[in-house]
Amino acid sequence: MADNVVTAAQLHERLVANPFNNWMGLKVLGLDEEKLEVGLTWREEMVSNPKARYTHGGIIGALIDVAADFAIAAKLGQPVPTVDMRVDYHRAAMPGDLRAVGRVIRMGGTFSVAEAMVYDGENRLIASGRGVYFTQPPKA
Amino acid sequence: MADNVVTAAQLHERLVANPFNNWMGLKVLGLDEEKLEVGLTWREEMVSNPKARYTHGGIIGALIDVAADFAIAAKLGQPVPTVDMRVDYHRAAMPGDLRAVGRVIRMGGTFSVAEAMVYDGENRLIASGRGVYFTQPPKA
Amino acid sequence: MADNVVTAAQLHERLVANPFNNWMGLKVLGLDEEKLEVGLTWREEMVSNPKARYTHGGIIGALIDVAADFAIAAKLGQPVPTVDMRVDYHRAAMPGDLRAVGRVIRMGGTFSVAEAMVYDGENRLIASGRGVYFTQPPKA
Amino acid sequence: MADNVVTAAQLHERLVANPFNNWMGLKVLGLDEEKLEVGLTWREEMVSNPKARYTHGGIIGALIDVAADFAIAAKLGQPVPTVDMRVDYHRAAMPGDLRAVGRVIRMGGTFSVAEAMVYDGENRLIASGRGVYFTQPPKA
Repeated sequence: MADNVVTAAQLHERLVANPFNNWMGLKVLGLDEEKLEVGLTWREEMVSNPKARYTHGGIIGALIDVAADFAIAAKLGQPVPTVDMRVDYHRAAMPGDLRAVGRVIRMGGTFSVAEAMVYDGENRLIASGRGVYFTQPPKA
Repeated sequence: MADNVVTAAQLHERLVANPFNNWMGLKVLGLDEEKLEVGLTWREEMVSNPKARYTHGGIIGALIDVAADFAIAAKLGQPVPTVDMRVDYHRAAMPGDLRAVGRVIRMGGTFSVAEAMVYDGENRLIASGRGVYFTQPPKA
Repeated sequence: MADNVVTAAQLHERLVANPFNNWMGLKVLGLDEEKLEVGLTWREEMVSNPKARYTHGGIIGALIDVAADFAIAAKLGQPVPTVDMRVDYHRAAMPGDLRAVGRVIRMGGTFSVAEAMVYDGENRLIASGRGVYFTQPPKA
Repeated sequence: MADNVVTAAQLHERLVANPFNNWMGLKVLGLDEEKLEVGLTWREEMVSNPKARYTHGGIIGALIDVAADFAIAAKLGQPVPTVDMRVDYHRAAMPGDLRAVGRVIRMGGTFSVAEAMVYDGENRLIASGRGVYFTQPPKA
C-alpha cells in the first residue's frame, strides 16, 4: 500500500474545511499507514425516528463515505470524488458520538476502493460499507 | 404492486416527524401508485468541497434512502429499517434544491427492494440508488 | 440517451464470442434504443442447492452483469470492463430459461451505470441489479 | 463471533453437493474461526473476452458469493439464501485457479453480512465484495 503523504493534522484541516463534515462534527482521531479513524459528534438534528431516537441512516452513510474517502486522501493528499458506495446497517445507533475506521482496499490508477466500519461509544459495530473513488490524476 | 395505504399528506406528516429529514427540508411533492416524489431544500451546511460548493454525497445518499424507504411506507403505512443501500453518483449537485423519485422494485414478506433517482432543478439526473428494507411484520 | 451503434445481430455475435456467455447459452432476444433483452438457456450444471434445485445466484449475477454491460455495448460498439456491481435476489429461480432486460441509467465519459432485471419463464421478477462500467475511450 | 459448528471436511462436502459449485471446481482449502478459504479450478469455459482471455466477472462474483455464504455456513451448519451482494473488480484475472477468503462481518438474527476477497495464483487481489444473507431460523 502507498505511504501516507499528509499528517493527521493536515487531513483534519482538510476534513473540516467541508461545511457538511463540519456540521457533523467530524474530526480525525487517528491515522497510521493502515487506517484512518474519524469521530462524529452527535447532535439532536441527527435523530431519525422521533420515538426510537436512533441516528439517521443517512448520517451513518455519510460518515462511511467520508472515512473511506479520507483513507484514500491520506495516500493522495486530497479527497476524491465518490463513484458509488454501499452501506450495510448492522445495528441501530442510539444517541451518542460515533467512530469510523476507514481503510483502503485497493489503490488503482483510475479508481480505487476503500471501506469503513462504524462503531458506537461501546465499540459495537453499527454499520459498515465500501465505495469506489475516482483517483485518476487530472490531465496535464 | 400493492395499493397505497396512506395519502401524500399523511406520508408528509410522518416524513417530517423525523428530525434529520426535517433538517434537510424534505417534503412530499407527489404520490401515486407507481412513485413517490420527495423534495429537498438546499442549505449552506449541505456544501461539501468549499471551493467547488457541490452538495455533500452523504446528503444525496440520505435523500435516496428516504425516498426509497417512503415509497415502501406508502404501501405499508410506515417507514421501515434499511438493511443496506447502494448509491451511484452521476453528476455533481450544485447549490440548489433537489428532487427524488422513489419506486418499489419488489415488495416481499421479509425484505423489500426500492430505488430512487435524484434530479436537480434543471431535471438533470444527479444520482440514483437502491436499498433493501426490512418489511417483515412484527410478531404478534 | 445515445443512439445504438450496432444491430441486434452484431451484438449477439459479440456476445457469444465470449466462452462463458456461450456456456450460459446467452442470446440477444431484442434490442431497441431503450433496452436490450438477453436470454439464458438453462442447463443442469447451473443448479445450486441439489434438493431445492433453484438456479445458482452466481449465474443470475453473471446474467445481470452481461445484460447491463451489453446495454452499454449497444451504445458504444463493444462491451466494457465492469468496475463493480450489485445484485438483489427477489425470488428463487426454478429450473428453466431466464430473460434479462438491460438498460443504461447514465452514460458518462469515464464510467457509466446500467441496470438489468431478470425474469423467469412466467415473467416473474427473479432478480435485479446494476453496475458501474468503465467507458473511458482508450488514449490515442 | 460464533464458533464454527462444522469441520472443513463437512463444509467441503456440502459445498460440492451444489452442481454449479462443483462445475467451478470449488473446494474448501482451509477453515478456522476467523475465515474460510475456497479454491476455484479454472476451466476454459470460464473465459470472458476471447482475445484478452481473462476470467468472466460472473464467475468471480459467484466465487465471492459462495465464499461469503459458506463463511456463514461454518457458523450455522448450512448455507443460507443471498439477499443481495456487491462485487468490486480490482484487476483482470488471467487464466488460472483462484482462491477466495470469506469472513463474517456481522452475524444477526434475521440477516447477516459476510465478505470475501479473491486472489490469483500470485496472491494478487483480483476482486472483493460482500453480501447480505438471510439467517433467520425457520419458524417451528
